[in-house]
Amino acid sequence: MDSKQIAKNTVKTLISYLTYQAVRVVVSQLSETDPPVAIWLNSFSSTGKIQDGEAYLKELIVERQALAFRIMTVREHLAAEIVDFLPEMARTGIEQANMEHRRQYLERVTQLNLETQSEPDLDSPAG
Amino acid sequence: MDSKQIAKNTVKTLISYLTYQAVRVVVSQLSETDPPVAIWLNSFSSTGKIQDGEAYLKELIVERQALAFRIMTVREHLAAEIVDFLPEMARTGIEQANMEHRRQYLERVTQLNLETQSEPDLDSPAG
Repeated sequence: MDSKQIAKNTVKTLISYLTYQAVRVVVSQLSETDPPVAIWLNSFSSTGKIQDGEAYLKELIVERQALAFRIMTVREHLAAEIVDFLPEMARTGIEQANMEHRRQYLERVTQLNLETQSEPDLDSPAG
Repeated sequence: MDSKQIAKNTVKTLISYLTYQAVRVVVSQLSETDPPVAIWLNSFSSTGKIQDGEAYLKELIVERQALAFRIMTVREHLAAEIVDFLPEMARTGIEQANMEHRRQYLERVTQLNLETQSEPDLDSPAG
């Protein structure tokens, strides 16, 4: 298990996700101040290319440099505000979700056992 | 900008990504110890449903509980090993990427200006 490589890939995904969230923030701001540009940015961003945040920004800089720079600034702010909370939230989130999956599984298995035990004898008459 | 909600959504994406990475680890382990199960798990996991880690695990528990529990354990280990590094890596990654986008943009603009300045007079004969 190559933890270092996994950490690198995870950060890349994380940054792309923050870029996507920054785009949503900027679209929402623009929809109040400049609706046509909001519509343009929304349609530019909704073709799946935002999966790779850097490739997306590279393309947007060519089309509309000011918007791209604005998104870059917003994602930097977003990162500053939330990334420090992520480790604890991720650890707790995984622990709780794992516990919940195990609990549901045990509940189902117990239920099945109870049902099996309370089944009528095969010899007893039906109805 | 609702940072709290964005943090929550980001953690969900992060956990789903770690679940995906845990699946990859388990598939890779199984491909050495139990190739048919590796193939089964790979095909079960490659239909896009892994986008939502919890829904994916819920479904897998019904199909093959032991595999699901193993993936849950691996993602917990993965989180313990890497999440503490993510804040710094994300901040630095975004800062560097932003700087690089700005640098490339300035380089292109400067290049364009130089080319414009060194263009021949419109009056001079062509060729």
